[in-house]
Amino acid sequence: MSSGKLLSMLREKQPLIHHISNLVTLKDCAQVTSCIGALPVMADALEEVEEITTSSSALLLNTGTFSSGRLEVMQTAGRAAEGRSIPVVLDPVGAGASSLRTRSVTRILQDVKPVILKGNYAEISAAAGMQAEIRGVHSLQRDEPGAPNAKKLLSAINYPAVVAVTGKVNYITDGRREAYIYNGHFLMPHIVGSGCMLSSLCAAFAAVSTDPFYAAVAAFASAGVTAEIAAVQAGNSLLGPVDFKQRFLDALFYLNPHELDSRAKIEIK
Amino acid sequence: MSSGKLLSMLREKQPLIHHISNLVTLKDCAQVTSCIGALPVMADALEEVEEITTSSSALLLNTGTFSSGRLEVMQTAGRAAEGRSIPVVLDPVGAGASSLRTRSVTRILQDVKPVILKGNYAEISAAAGMQAEIRGVHSLQRDEPGAPNAKKLLSAINYPAVVAVTGKVNYITDGRREAYIYNGHFLMPHIVGSGCMLSSLCAAFAAVSTDPFYAAVAAFASAGVTAEIAAVQAGNSLLGPVDFKQRFLDALFYLNPHELDSRAKIEIK
Amino acid sequence: MSSGKLLSMLREKQPLIHHISNLVTLKDCAQVTSCIGALPVMADALEEVEEITTSSSALLLNTGTFSSGRLEVMQTAGRAAEGRSIPVVLDPVGAGASSLRTRSVTRILQDVKPVILKGNYAEISAAAGMQAEIRGVHSLQRDEPGAPNAKKLLSAINYPAVVAVTGKVNYITDGRREAYIYNGHFLMPHIVGSGCMLSSLCAAFAAVSTDPFYAAVAAFASAGVTAEIAAVQAGNSLLGPVDFKQRFLDALFYLNPHELDSRAKIEIK
Repeated sequence: MSSGKLLSMLREKQPLIHHISNLVTLKDCAQVTSCIGALPVMADALEEVEEITTSSSALLLNTGTFSSGRLEVMQTAGRAAEGRSIPVVLDPVGAGASSLRTRSVTRILQDVKPVILKGNYAEISAAAGMQAEIRGVHSLQRDEPGAPNAKKLLSAINYPAVVAVTGKVNYITDGRREAYIYNGHFLMPHIVGSGCMLSSLCAAFAAVSTDPFYAAVAAFASAGVTAEIAAVQAGNSLLGPVDFKQRFLDALFYLNPHELDSRAKIEIK
Repeated sequence: MSSGKLLSMLREKQPLIHHISNLVTLKDCAQVTSCIGALPVMADALEEVEEITTSSSALLLNTGTFSSGRLEVMQTAGRAAEGRSIPVVLDPVGAGASSLRTRSVTRILQDVKPVILKGNYAEISAAAGMQAEIRGVHSLQRDEPGAPNAKKLLSAINYPAVVAVTGKVNYITDGRREAYIYNGHFLMPHIVGSGCMLSSLCAAFAAVSTDPFYAAVAAFASAGVTAEIAAVQAGNSLLGPVDFKQRFLDALFYLNPHELDSRAKIEIK
Repeated sequence: MSSGKLLSMLREKQPLIHHISNLVTLKDCAQVTSCIGALPVMADALEEVEEITTSSSALLLNTGTFSSGRLEVMQTAGRAAEGRSIPVVLDPVGAGASSLRTRSVTRILQDVKPVILKGNYAEISAAAGMQAEIRGVHSLQRDEPGAPNAKKLLSAINYPAVVAVTGKVNYITDGRREAYIYNGHFLMPHIVGSGCMLSSLCAAFAAVSTDPFYAAVAAFASAGVTAEIAAVQAGNSLLGPVDFKQRFLDALFYLNPHELDSRAKIEIK
């Protein structure tokens, strides 16, 4: 199904997206979810996550600002999602940066079995048990294509899933199909939270799609195309990354499904 | 007293507003409090809330990103407020979305006795013990007038208070008087945090008003009028909800008390 | 070394800055760190701070939204920094506003020995054991010059450090040298998070400078000069503090080292 079709469905259904997400970008994740047309709910107390997940259409787990208590929260929400066939998206923020995060990501993969794993080159490598060149939460391998570590992660987890790797060219695979998404803007990596917001979009599309591969493709295409539209609209008056972030969110709010399809530069193999 | 008069008093006194508020919108609540002319302080550690509340002029409790630990924090701060006659405002975010939140809101109403209860249709219904149509923290009954559930809540709590219900038309009552506020802008509900920011304004006005009914009216009028001013100022260059939010905050910073009174569309019965 | 030279070094080295910072301004601190050219990492779990600090080039401790658990986290990270000679910057947000914060700041000064202590007049006074006129986290002594309380703090802590006091005129001293920085803009104090962002800049410059005195000077000069550039660029179209904050961050992203040096109004004695 085309990304534009999925976007139309998303706006009609307005799915509720349960975020257990990092505290740095919490508001941006909520706002991007609202701008694409879904409903965000942020709840991370052990006492209520099961109930909140059960009433949601997708669950997003983001391991930024992590702690060991959060692992239990994510496992509990993940079990609730599994019992109801609610799709789970994992953004393994900082995998490779601390043993707590690397270890916890491995546990989440085993216990929760997210259907979309979205990260930067280093995070996907670390999740796959490979050496990762990472500084804090920042991948030092931004220019490398994501195919090798994505495939390594797929064979490591040993269950059907989609791996999506951000980078100069974005790469998505489920082991059988591969997508390269060429849309984007050079300022996006300078926006704090751009990766987290992209994960929220993956969850929003996963909530309305039966095929997580095309959900991830639609999320990446929506973000990349919207960035390009925002840049065109701004023209010479673009001030910098923070101005660009606001323009990105507002352009996403008005993103037209037909324009999404016509501007998307997706190569699927 | 007119909303404009209260705004002038607020700017002169610069009251300190203690927020125990949700983590998604913490910064926005602090910024809106600063823009209206008050001083925000965000502190939620059990060890210090009593001391912080005692030095404040109002206490705001917001149950977003809630946990059972937060209930104790809010009760402790609430007791400190009661002992000093410091007004307490409650925004029961997510009441009805989880049993933890619904139950905790009931406990806060009993133990802390907030003077202003501000929520959307579903949250006020859930606080009143009624069935609520809610998806996450989003009311599905945005178009319904708030009078029935507000009155139900007032009779349920059994102490004098003001109930303020957001919606297409905003509704405020203390059981004796009723106010309808018609100001606003269609983009406001698309701003993540607009409800939380309105609660901060309620607390800021409650800090300088002896009548919480007019404090709530002034808060709703300020938000609605400012939204209209921001839209007029933006004209055709308005980009979307995130641009609008920034323009709203900046217009609030410059909101003129006379313009507030002349633009306010308030009906009081 | 000139502030411009330090800025060039900072952009070349892209140091990782570990923040244990307050939840209100977490995203703004990350964004300002990114805009100046460094890499932010926000991590506050006891289980991982040692590992994160060890891989970082500077550690920033900010006592906003504090709790007693945070003290242990900061002490643990501080020990890791000390063992590796990683510079530590302390922003004692709210010192004087609660006994928890005042006491904890004293403990951090004793145990962690930060090389730069940056605060407003009241916070620095409270850290020095003096009476502080503070309302919440807001100093009521904004117009007073910072020399007396800065010197008092230096003699109280009894180890070599730099004290930097924000105010109408910014003041920095290490006991031997004194700097007055005259750059800035009247809207800065109305931006929630402007103080926290300045502390992030102190940490970013401390990461690339062997002399913390000049690191603090460069941070204050960068913030003040950037504010002035943003105001000039905005001209009549400046909307208010929130618009200004965005323009400030974007102007920082493009701040030219030569322009920094030529516009800086620094007096060193």
